[in-house]
Amino acid sequence: MRILGIDPGSLATGYGVVERCGARAVHVAHGTLRPPRADALPARLAFLHRAVAELVTAHRPDAVAIESVFAGRSARAALVLGQARGAVLAALASAGLPIREVAPQHVKLAVTGTGAAEKAQVQAMVRRLLALAATPPRDAADALAAALCCANESPLAVLRSAEPKTRSSRAGVRPSRRDASRLVVRRIR
Amino acid sequence: MRILGIDPGSLATGYGVVERCGARAVHVAHGTLRPPRADALPARLAFLHRAVAELVTAHRPDAVAIESVFAGRSARAALVLGQARGAVLAALASAGLPIREVAPQHVKLAVTGTGAAEKAQVQAMVRRLLALAATPPRDAADALAAALCCANESPLAVLRSAEPKTRSSRAGVRPSRRDASRLVVRRIR
Repeated sequence: MRILGIDPGSLATGYGVVERCGARAVHVAHGTLRPPRADALPARLAFLHRAVAELVTAHRPDAVAIESVFAGRSARAALVLGQARGAVLAALASAGLPIREVAPQHVKLAVTGTGAAEKAQVQAMVRRLLALAATPPRDAADALAAALCCANESPLAVLRSAEPKTRSSRAGVRPSRRDASRLVVRRIR
Repeated sequence: MRILGIDPGSLATGYGVVERCGARAVHVAHGTLRPPRADALPARLAFLHRAVAELVTAHRPDAVAIESVFAGRSARAALVLGQARGAVLAALASAGLPIREVAPQHVKLAVTGTGAAEKAQVQAMVRRLLALAATPPRDAADALAAALCCANESPLAVLRSAEPKTRSSRAGVRPSRRDASRLVVRRIR
């Protein structure tokens, strides 16, 4: 089961690919997509759409993990983020991939053991959990963390929850604290 | 000069194609793209991306007109609209089309003579200006109005303003009131 985590943004979109091998999660790739800053917004969105389609072709994931959006931002910020998400999600759904939305606090909980972790903590834990030689950049670390959060679940649960669903179940994954700490303990040892 | 107006939305995306023939604007086509409501959001966005690409292939526009977004909406509404816009803009930019953003009040001013026109007024004026047999639905009327607003400008101005630009000029088109009323007077007579 190979999972592509993605953290969309109009200036930088982080991605991370993680493979579940038995009870372990293994790092495959990560990076940041950066549309040329001099381009107008529509051209940047077209770049993101194309780059995400290329990522899917290159890494052939079985599912996608993406953080759900925290509602407490400004309308302007939500619009900008929404546009990047729209281009990215359209490319992923065109490739026929099941897409799982995960609440940011659950991603943090799964990789650090606390839902209120700082960015730097997430970066450090992602490095540790995946035994990376260097700390991944923020956007890529967030994407890897989302992928890790999903990799920790049963493949059937990931695929099932990513199917078209009712409004109530769209809110995101809610792993129990016990599940989350099991992942951390298992990987740190 | 053929202009595709587009009014993105996650449930309904209106479109309208208008051709400028000398001083006249002629109706080519209009309609509404409706992704299947039972589909999950990513699938609806992929549908929009594909449908917009097909519109471009079918109608071969020279430029695109799209309303800029009014900032006074909620963060949740801005996110939902942003996602639909992102999928649509990525498809349009992938086709290499120049895209012109127009402020909603300038579109209304151009077709009705007042920037504070009601939706029904816009629909009625679009029908009149383009000599349509029936009143177009709201989303399609808004798209036709955006296309009409651009069709009234010199082709060079449309293409030039749609190029990558600085932050200040991204705010939208600001036709003078005189220009706008000239269009209305010319078409109603």
